[in-house]
Amino acid sequence: MIPIISIVGKSDSGKTTLIEKLVPELTRRGYRVATVKHDMHGFEVDHEGKDSWRHKQAGAHTVVISSPQKVALIRDVEKDLTLDEIRARWIRDVDLILSEGYKRDVQPKIEVFRKEKHKKLLCAKKDNLIAVVSNQKFRVGVPCFGLEDMRELSNFIEKEFLKSKKEKEISLRVDGKPIPMTPFVRDFLTKTVKGMLSALRGCETSEQIEIYIEEKGRG
Amino acid sequence: MIPIISIVGKSDSGKTTLIEKLVPELTRRGYRVATVKHDMHGFEVDHEGKDSWRHKQAGAHTVVISSPQKVALIRDVEKDLTLDEIRARWIRDVDLILSEGYKRDVQPKIEVFRKEKHKKLLCAKKDNLIAVVSNQKFRVGVPCFGLEDMRELSNFIEKEFLKSKKEKEISLRVDGKPIPMTPFVRDFLTKTVKGMLSALRGCETSEQIEIYIEEKGRG
Repeated sequence: MIPIISIVGKSDSGKTTLIEKLVPELTRRGYRVATVKHDMHGFEVDHEGKDSWRHKQAGAHTVVISSPQKVALIRDVEKDLTLDEIRARWIRDVDLILSEGYKRDVQPKIEVFRKEKHKKLLCAKKDNLIAVVSNQKFRVGVPCFGLEDMRELSNFIEKEFLKSKKEKEISLRVDGKPIPMTPFVRDFLTKTVKGMLSALRGCETSEQIEIYIEEKGRG
Repeated sequence: MIPIISIVGKSDSGKTTLIEKLVPELTRRGYRVATVKHDMHGFEVDHEGKDSWRHKQAGAHTVVISSPQKVALIRDVEKDLTLDEIRARWIRDVDLILSEGYKRDVQPKIEVFRKEKHKKLLCAKKDNLIAVVSNQKFRVGVPCFGLEDMRELSNFIEKEFLKSKKEKEISLRVDGKPIPMTPFVRDFLTKTVKGMLSALRGCETSEQIEIYIEEKGRG
């Protein structure tokens, strides 16, 4: 499962700035990073008057813009999604997810703090705070890094989240809901699926398997 | 599998305008529509200076913006994706996909034509042309609808693409590649997976099953 770290902090503490400095350092080390930004106020789809904007205005549930370098997808959702749901539905092919905001989500958090802006930290260790990035030293039981010290911060992230050993992962979602499985069931399901597929042409070696079954009736 | 129809036509023939008129009519009938726009020139991620734009500029491979009503995802791709690939990776929960452009893709096509703009049609029946929307009558072996006749055009789309009977679908991707399966293998795999899962709590009735297995080693 792709690890998630939330960059949290009070308003104007420098969350986006930290992400802007951290992403290039991690990318330089060969990791692919996804970012997730929580936007309570909604956002614009492309620029007003552009084709994709007109599609969305016309009532399209989902709009995709595809180019040879980038793909954009905009779609309606019924509710505010958790980081776990966002990861499960849309994020692939990256090593780490950095979210901006999501201070109430359960994921591990790094708080940015600048002493000239605020008096107190937003999170404590009980909120799953794992580090502080600040121009002030804190004794809160987690490591504290300087605002410019991307090298040490990246070493910490690498050690804690990215150097995981070869891992096997299986996830199962039924009608969109993740189904919890015991280690025995996980292992049983993985081995059954892999065993079954190993007889199929093109599936002899497989690092990633995706099966999608849908039964749908309409009209 | 969600049906795809490409709205094609020469430049300035009114493709976006047709989509703008067709989407509300289909939505009014209770269908959810996704649109796909091919953009060879690339596009902007949000507005310059906004947080998500800064994340992408910093080198993030994927950027997600999440609000309670909408989610946007922008990510790098290695190549221009086909409509089939876009559908498989990102489009869920809709009844129909309308793409704008993609005249070289294999999907069924509806051509928009305005006599004051062009002399000849872009596509023929051999290109999988299924209808023409125009202010000029064509005898090309496919139905021809007026530029404003969204009711008849929607009836046609509904009859040909949306009133499909209850269908069972299974797709299998290994390391990102779709694996073709014979009807026997499709049926065997569907029944095995469904049978196996029926014993798990929370999976007694299932319209949609998604299994994702990943083995990954790094560092």
